[in-house]
Amino acid sequence: MKVYEKELEIRSSRRVEFIDITSKILQVVKDSNISEGLCVIFVPHTTAGVTINENADPDVVFDIVKKLDSLIPRNDNYTHSEGNSDAHIKSSLIGVSLNLVITDGKIKLGTWQGIYFCEFDGPRYRKLWIKIIGE
Amino acid sequence: MKVYEKELEIRSSRRVEFIDITSKILQVVKDSNISEGLCVIFVPHTTAGVTINENADPDVVFDIVKKLDSLIPRNDNYTHSEGNSDAHIKSSLIGVSLNLVITDGKIKLGTWQGIYFCEFDGPRYRKLWIKIIGE
Amino acid sequence: MKVYEKELEIRSSRRVEFIDITSKILQVVKDSNISEGLCVIFVPHTTAGVTINENADPDVVFDIVKKLDSLIPRNDNYTHSEGNSDAHIKSSLIGVSLNLVITDGKIKLGTWQGIYFCEFDGPRYRKLWIKIIGE
Repeated sequence: MKVYEKELEIRSSRRVEFIDITSKILQVVKDSNISEGLCVIFVPHTTAGVTINENADPDVVFDIVKKLDSLIPRNDNYTHSEGNSDAHIKSSLIGVSLNLVITDGKIKLGTWQGIYFCEFDGPRYRKLWIKIIGE
Repeated sequence: MKVYEKELEIRSSRRVEFIDITSKILQVVKDSNISEGLCVIFVPHTTAGVTINENADPDVVFDIVKKLDSLIPRNDNYTHSEGNSDAHIKSSLIGVSLNLVITDGKIKLGTWQGIYFCEFDGPRYRKLWIKIIGE
Repeated sequence: MKVYEKELEIRSSRRVEFIDITSKILQVVKDSNISEGLCVIFVPHTTAGVTINENADPDVVFDIVKKLDSLIPRNDNYTHSEGNSDAHIKSSLIGVSLNLVITDGKIKLGTWQGIYFCEFDGPRYRKLWIKIIGE
């Protein structure tokens, strides 16, 4: 069994922003030299997340961000005093951890799928952990 | 370490539909001959998802579908021009990847749990990837 | 390859409640003697979930619970007759399965992250399955 781990740094430039990290993840898997296995992407933050969605038309991600903002507005009588409760709630709905399948030395993704780091309380420097096990 | 992979084809018959795939997944795990490990179910589409919920009373899934439709309506001033932004948003909220535990050669599920493929923009032919690692 | 599995019992004391299980999970990983690998937390119930969020200020979790209750109220013309459709819907949105990274014999978590068992239809006795693979 082989195990590989890598920490990436992401820089967001807006308060809410979906950043396409597909090519970075593909590179990590290539560097791992693991050809068959599982890859976990883990976001070590409580106001961010990670998701998979369409990477062809940027309007798709725009609509996701807009709908999340409308369901979970920034100001909404929250109790937490830091002004970022919306970001915490979005983080739990989108999730901070994601599983990917590795086959033939590559991440398997559908034709239109891209991997997005979801910033909900930026702009900030963020970290991302990738752990791969396999053979 | 053993690794096993299988692609399934799913056919949805409505625009929004939760399809019980539990027995199909159980069969894949049986075919894998892996007795202890982890199983990842991955949906390679951006307008579908995978979830676990009750498989006894079909009204449960009916209520989930209805609530998702009410929070994220099909028509809602979206920017993406293909008329399926709602499906993309639901896909990111429900998720396209799921972890299961394999023990004694079987998927471990709770008494009332079933695994559902979530179609949000059908009817279509869809694919589903199952990857298992263990021993 | 090493495989380790443990079942925990959780007791909730309210209908909706996020219970910090971080220290319990840390102990399970310690007991496993696995130093590098992946850990899956799986909730075998259809009206509960598991998430990661801030464990410093309890108001964060309070705001998540409140927002979920407002988006998915307990009474809302549901079809399922048991009066807990809201709990089933929340379970699918938050999710019943979570991936964690194990490095150097410990779960890797961000500075402010805690792991929460999410009760949506308590109070009840609940189970939680933890499965670890690695070396």
